[in-house]
Amino acid sequence: MFSVNAKLDQLAINALRCLAIDLVQAANSGHPGAPLGMAPAAYTLWDRFLRHNPRDPHWVNRDRFVLSAGHASALLYALLHLTGYDLSLDELRNFRQWGSKTPGHPERGLTPGVEATTGPLGQGFANAVGMAVAEKWLAARFNHPGHDIVDHFTYVMVSDGDLEEGVSYEAASLAGRWGLGKLICLYDCNGIQIEGSTHTNFPDDIGRRFQSMNWDVHGPVDGENVAAIADAIVAARGVAEHPSIVIVKSSIGYGSPLADCPACHGAPLGAENVAKTKEKLGQPATAAFFTPEEAAAHLRGAVERGAKEQARWQTRLDYYGKVFPDMAKRLLAQLRGELPAGWEAALSGGDGDGKPVATRVASGRALNALAKKIDFLIGGSADLAPSNNTEIKNEDFFADDKPWGRNIHFGVREHAMGAIANGLALHGGVVPYVGTFLTFADYMREPIRLAAMSGLRVIYVFTHDSIGLGEDGPTHQPIEQLLSLRAIPGLCVIRPADAGETAVAWRTALARENGPTALILTRQATPALDRRKLASAEQAARGGYVLWQSGEGRPDLILLASGSELAPALAAGERLAAEANVRVVSLPSWDLFDAQPADYRESVLPEAVRARVAVEAGRSLGWERYVGLDGAVAGIDRFGASAPAARLFEEFHVGAAQAAALGADLLKRRARKRAAAPRPPAQLDAAAGKPAGEG
Amino acid sequence: MFSVNAKLDQLAINALRCLAIDLVQAANSGHPGAPLGMAPAAYTLWDRFLRHNPRDPHWVNRDRFVLSAGHASALLYALLHLTGYDLSLDELRNFRQWGSKTPGHPERGLTPGVEATTGPLGQGFANAVGMAVAEKWLAARFNHPGHDIVDHFTYVMVSDGDLEEGVSYEAASLAGRWGLGKLICLYDCNGIQIEGSTHTNFPDDIGRRFQSMNWDVHGPVDGENVAAIADAIVAARGVAEHPSIVIVKSSIGYGSPLADCPACHGAPLGAENVAKTKEKLGQPATAAFFTPEEAAAHLRGAVERGAKEQARWQTRLDYYGKVFPDMAKRLLAQLRGELPAGWEAALSGGDGDGKPVATRVASGRALNALAKKIDFLIGGSADLAPSNNTEIKNEDFFADDKPWGRNIHFGVREHAMGAIANGLALHGGVVPYVGTFLTFADYMREPIRLAAMSGLRVIYVFTHDSIGLGEDGPTHQPIEQLLSLRAIPGLCVIRPADAGETAVAWRTALARENGPTALILTRQATPALDRRKLASAEQAARGGYVLWQSGEGRPDLILLASGSELAPALAAGERLAAEANVRVVSLPSWDLFDAQPADYRESVLPEAVRARVAVEAGRSLGWERYVGLDGAVAGIDRFGASAPAARLFEEFHVGAAQAAALGADLLKRRARKRAAAPRPPAQLDAAAGKPAGEG
Repeated sequence: MFSVNAKLDQLAINALRCLAIDLVQAANSGHPGAPLGMAPAAYTLWDRFLRHNPRDPHWVNRDRFVLSAGHASALLYALLHLTGYDLSLDELRNFRQWGSKTPGHPERGLTPGVEATTGPLGQGFANAVGMAVAEKWLAARFNHPGHDIVDHFTYVMVSDGDLEEGVSYEAASLAGRWGLGKLICLYDCNGIQIEGSTHTNFPDDIGRRFQSMNWDVHGPVDGENVAAIADAIVAARGVAEHPSIVIVKSSIGYGSPLADCPACHGAPLGAENVAKTKEKLGQPATAAFFTPEEAAAHLRGAVERGAKEQARWQTRLDYYGKVFPDMAKRLLAQLRGELPAGWEAALSGGDGDGKPVATRVASGRALNALAKKIDFLIGGSADLAPSNNTEIKNEDFFADDKPWGRNIHFGVREHAMGAIANGLALHGGVVPYVGTFLTFADYMREPIRLAAMSGLRVIYVFTHDSIGLGEDGPTHQPIEQLLSLRAIPGLCVIRPADAGETAVAWRTALARENGPTALILTRQATPALDRRKLASAEQAARGGYVLWQSGEGRPDLILLASGSELAPALAAGERLAAEANVRVVSLPSWDLFDAQPADYRESVLPEAVRARVAVEAGRSLGWERYVGLDGAVAGIDRFGASAPAARLFEEFHVGAAQAAALGADLLKRRARKRAAAPRPPAQLDAAAGKPAGEG
Repeated sequence: MFSVNAKLDQLAINALRCLAIDLVQAANSGHPGAPLGMAPAAYTLWDRFLRHNPRDPHWVNRDRFVLSAGHASALLYALLHLTGYDLSLDELRNFRQWGSKTPGHPERGLTPGVEATTGPLGQGFANAVGMAVAEKWLAARFNHPGHDIVDHFTYVMVSDGDLEEGVSYEAASLAGRWGLGKLICLYDCNGIQIEGSTHTNFPDDIGRRFQSMNWDVHGPVDGENVAAIADAIVAARGVAEHPSIVIVKSSIGYGSPLADCPACHGAPLGAENVAKTKEKLGQPATAAFFTPEEAAAHLRGAVERGAKEQARWQTRLDYYGKVFPDMAKRLLAQLRGELPAGWEAALSGGDGDGKPVATRVASGRALNALAKKIDFLIGGSADLAPSNNTEIKNEDFFADDKPWGRNIHFGVREHAMGAIANGLALHGGVVPYVGTFLTFADYMREPIRLAAMSGLRVIYVFTHDSIGLGEDGPTHQPIEQLLSLRAIPGLCVIRPADAGETAVAWRTALARENGPTALILTRQATPALDRRKLASAEQAARGGYVLWQSGEGRPDLILLASGSELAPALAAGERLAAEANVRVVSLPSWDLFDAQPADYRESVLPEAVRARVAVEAGRSLGWERYVGLDGAVAGIDRFGASAPAARLFEEFHVGAAQAAALGADLLKRRARKRAAAPRPPAQLDAAAGKPAGEG
């Protein structure tokens, strides 16, 4: 069906191969095997099918191409360079070097044309599922008969390793259920992995596996046979009701003396083998970074094709804009990630009604209020929606027959949920949120990390955030999860104390365009904070603020807390107020607080005040950042237990009583220290502007 | 094939059901649905097949039964109670209460007869795979013709949710490859989950899925039909070459007015519905915790059967002991978890040869030395063995045709690897270790957590522990992982600095019988530490120690570091020695150090010395625990980058230069503070025994 020039195909394929291994050789680091083996399949896809415009990598209706096997990055860079993306030969020469656009694994945002940050196996596959969901959802919402304005394929290339990872099964099951007909997976089945043949641990019948999950299976086809690969892709594109996988039997390290050996997977071939490979592939053995002009010209054809494709689409968009002007405007704004003007107004004033409420319930209300204003806020839970309060009321569930649904049933698949959310955010046009119990954030660490690394606006609704979960016991009670999430660079973690702070947290998360946010929410009702007498919850936007202080001026003691421990901290503060000037600080977000100017931070936590107690129903580790060596932490440094929540808070000593006891102890120590300290002359004291002995 | 009394079966099944829902009702918390639905299958297994001795839950050759669907705990407790385990009716009445032996989800070690801590879905299934591996491995090593001394089945009950989780696919793929014929999975397929019907997100063809992974599939059978379930289990037991899954179509909440509704999954039925259920099941509607005597007597038959089974095995063991006395002794010692006498001698003296070496290489040497002494140390890597240095040389790989192999090819399946390692440790008779890159510890957080919670001796070999990984870039460079692991209660994290400390770390990990240990190891060679001039690496066993100090007495400045940053810290210390009395502290393990007596900790980190600098190529967060508000941390608080390692250490400022600069700065601040401080009378100064102004 194509006007085929087999010789030219082979020339181009071998040019890609040689360029890829040159990258690896120049860096003296990297993965030559997969690029050599995958080149024909990747070439076939890019040459015959992929609709993309190298001059405008952000064209919204481009086909998406995800290289889940991110270690084959050299092949992707060779493709991007030769098809005309803004990726120079110098960048290729700088493969894997400081400051280059050609890092070891593809990084989204750094390199034009890279759709997703990949490398950790299985992630890219699930990202692609998310992208295909976004496409299907937007198409269902915006297309009209004769106006298929959102209409593109999502292609993903995976390796054996990708398909061994559990997340790939989880995501595949959902993709099959959702009938993502425009999702096509090219499986580079080379049968070799680092420890040897996949026969040793991956003899699965892949076709049968994917069929069991409602996919259409094509192949196996010969990885060197462009026509066969193309035919399989044509067939896959013809299947509208199911996602498709094309099994491509390839040869890792093809053309090199190390072909079909694990040795060529992750180490440079060496100069001698590079020369031998080039010879075998019909290229000059000694010319590095050389591409035969005929091959280069052919691959550069993508520029002209891409411009034409985009122009054709632009014409359709223009027409669409005339017929549906509002929708066109909304679609483009959505795709730019813009929220509708005045969306913040959806949230009632941050200070709530002062009634006790579980922050998960407050979150569900905030979500539903926001969802009315932002009709492309979509998401769901890993089978805990009623507990996470993540359902958008009166909206359909996303399904093959309801692709416009805004509630997504992920099933008990936290890992895929996180990775699919990344794909939704990477595609654009929707703002994804996902929920589960905080403990089970452990199942989805990798996608959270990648969201942070890629700067994706994904909102995590993590409920049941402590021993307050109660009877389900230690397996379900998070202890270390809060600290573990705070440890992820670029992830904003917010643990609000009441309905007011919860609304602020949601607002912050949505306003944060370039990074993910984790909302950490209680199962149990948190006691009411009377905001008329306390600082406004609006201040939570700064991450930390003075909630209350018993006296004026510099406090003697500071109590810090987040979430459900704020009210007990306040109670402890009130109890100690007779003895000292006590300040209570709400610290819902370390990230946000640490980003405040130094003088603001000093105004909340004056450096000179060292009597500090933190209370939080989680690991105490980490709180030393705020209480130092002289402070104390009422935290939990063991696993939880199964019992009603109230009993647990008692037994684990993370309430008002413990906070007050620790505070009183610090005040006593401080008094002793003062008494023991040498008294300097009065004038010096006055000059220093503070009581001697403090600090 | 059984002498069947169908009426008695039904009576016993309904007794289990009624008892289970009474537990939930009494606790006013829990999961009645699964117990009601699963009871016939569980009963059939326990009554007809399970070889166990309620009076000796530790009988080493018992069949293992894992309830992967841990939320059905009420059913398990009912079974344990009624079959004669040491679990009283009072304990059942205290379901989910503080201090009871009947927590919300089964906890290993707390309740006799509970084989694994389950609840986080998918884990128990993978644990069972590990148990079946242990059985197969021990049988291959110890059995002789006519002496099947290790010979038991492993049964696991799973729910829909278990099979949705990716870890279940990963583990199933391996179980199929390994031909674990004595692993039998009962799949409680009730088609209902919290968010509704599984049709919405789990319409997979389970039979086909498991067939694609080399399992034998039985059923679907009617979940109410004891004979059909028994027949399927008989068939499954007859398949020696493949693991088997029995698909049991059950009805969640069977017998209750909420049958087949999500509402009965995770909330008590309510008194009225409990009464109606009992009526339907032919039990007195109002009697709580009542078991008809006929049913109780029948179920208690397990005690006599179990005693006989164990006695029969004991006879076989006695005979085995006569024919193979050494092996019998070794087998029993192994099963008790005892290491061979003098195993520590395998490790050369902790102080190494002083040559630069990557700690992953040192670890590989330690492992191989230990493996010679401890021939039941088995494990492997998630397809990174050559990089993790986790291969035991000259030993076979574990496979269906080599079940005695000690090297396990897990494939790119970190999650299952962790959970299977837990299963190996739970079974006993082997000491498991597993390896991957430190970054990918994120894929296996849940099993690490459960190992810590369950007190399992599992050793994690996490290599490529920082930006020192180099060119592979940020996706592969751990930043937050070290802190995230330190956050897990009960997990011992050790990041050794050189070959000597690495040997100590391995020794510590093996000696630690009741908990997991994570070894955090470099990819790159760490500079030699000349232990003749420095403290002995043996001190690493205390978690932290003074490596070196420039002067005598109390230091002016303390530099702290772990792993590859210790040598740079030492270099910084030497650079600053001209200005001040500088101490360098090696802190390979926070856990071990924090567990030391207070006076030892004070001797290493004197409270009065506040000029402290920590250097570590990971998140700085957490180090405030040791440096306080007055110290400084040279850490990395963003994601890494792709470049050669040396360049990265330069760019990220986590070397000697930064440590020296921060140290110099603190010394300056200290000098300024001293100068500004009021000078007390000389005699007071002398009395305090230290320079004024310090502290």
